[in-house]
Amino acid sequence: MNETIEQLRKHCSIRAYTDQPVSEEQLRAIVTSAQAASTSSFVQAYSIIGVRDRARKARLAELAGGQKHVEQCPLLLVFCLDLHRLELCARLEGFEPERTETALESTEQYTVGVVDAALAAQNAAIAAESLGLGICYIGGLRNRPKDVAELLKTPERVVPLFGMTVGRPAEPAATKPRLAPEAVYSEEFYPADEEALTRLTEYNGMLSAYYRERTGGGRADRWSEQMTLRLSRPSRLDWRTYLTNRGLPLK
Amino acid sequence: MNETIEQLRKHCSIRAYTDQPVSEEQLRAIVTSAQAASTSSFVQAYSIIGVRDRARKARLAELAGGQKHVEQCPLLLVFCLDLHRLELCARLEGFEPERTETALESTEQYTVGVVDAALAAQNAAIAAESLGLGICYIGGLRNRPKDVAELLKTPERVVPLFGMTVGRPAEPAATKPRLAPEAVYSEEFYPADEEALTRLTEYNGMLSAYYRERTGGGRADRWSEQMTLRLSRPSRLDWRTYLTNRGLPLK
Repeated sequence: MNETIEQLRKHCSIRAYTDQPVSEEQLRAIVTSAQAASTSSFVQAYSIIGVRDRARKARLAELAGGQKHVEQCPLLLVFCLDLHRLELCARLEGFEPERTETALESTEQYTVGVVDAALAAQNAAIAAESLGLGICYIGGLRNRPKDVAELLKTPERVVPLFGMTVGRPAEPAATKPRLAPEAVYSEEFYPADEEALTRLTEYNGMLSAYYRERTGGGRADRWSEQMTLRLSRPSRLDWRTYLTNRGLPLK
Repeated sequence: MNETIEQLRKHCSIRAYTDQPVSEEQLRAIVTSAQAASTSSFVQAYSIIGVRDRARKARLAELAGGQKHVEQCPLLLVFCLDLHRLELCARLEGFEPERTETALESTEQYTVGVVDAALAAQNAAIAAESLGLGICYIGGLRNRPKDVAELLKTPERVVPLFGMTVGRPAEPAATKPRLAPEAVYSEEFYPADEEALTRLTEYNGMLSAYYRERTGGGRADRWSEQMTLRLSRPSRLDWRTYLTNRGLPLK
């Protein structure tokens, strides 16, 4: 084991921050670390918008479903899938816009952009944490995508995918136990259901015990219970329509 | 700056490996680091399949478009979007499968799974590099998704998204210069096209100079030229159909 791995393994989401701002030097280290991540075929298909303005953060907090830490954090980074930059490339090369459409409108290109943005974001998260800062991913920015896009003035084919709050942690937080490594990792091929169900039952017991201990017995959810509840209340079913309206029909 | 950030910033893809195997201890550190990444609503919607079998790697190398390092690396990690595990959760809770469909078939859930898998993968990459190993992402596994899925025995709603070769680097590699930080990062909102075009032109010059220097003048591509060429040859246009056939119609 080494320090980097120790840092990775003790990650937990931080939802309360001190007032101390993120310095320009820290921000630059975070952004250049994000950029150093791998990018499919070198497309660099993402953009990051940093929001510090209090009113704008407050509005984004509201749009994300009332997540107070989005307003309270000193810096909110918004990670966007960005295919517009590729359109500008084509324009620079004198290439007719119509000839870029098949590629830009494909599900493959959407997938590449989502992966690129996530790899960059995770590098940003690790860089921030190595500087003693805390972070929390904000998927809630997909709740009201049209309003978020208007606020951040993102053009067609640029889609705010998720946010990341950044700042100095105001309180300690605990890592929640994950699935056993054997439950997510298998050798040579995907495991049979019987094996997976055994692992899930073990994990249910472990997570129940974790909640019981932390709440003095007040809570004892199974993981499968949490996940089933989540599946029973599907969210953001308009995401596909939104993408289509923004030039990404996922063909 | 610190060591973690230095490591992140010097990342480069490694495509030639020594024969030295990845040890069980290293593998465990890589997998547990991957698992420590954030996961949307705690869904942990990914699985990792580790391939060491020479014949299986050779076949995957072929399916990925003849990428020799996929065969030559001691360990290939295949990162899969995994919504099947959520189905098993519902089964454990006695929840009818039909009631999970709306959530599982949504574009939102696909996006969450792709992000989850990518965050985990990037943590794996960083853990591996901190151990002195090198990695390379393999998007080429999406070239022949049906054949890859058959080989890895992935069930419906488990989709191999990309691979990652892992091993001890056999040769040094150089980091390719990325876009300027100002070209991917903006404050408060997305920048105007004029600004972006200026940055792109600057980057074109920088990248041309980089290629010229490395090839003794033999090559001098502009980035916008590379990207336009890529857009003119759209790839993996059957990805959407494949997803639909595997229970992910991206509704």
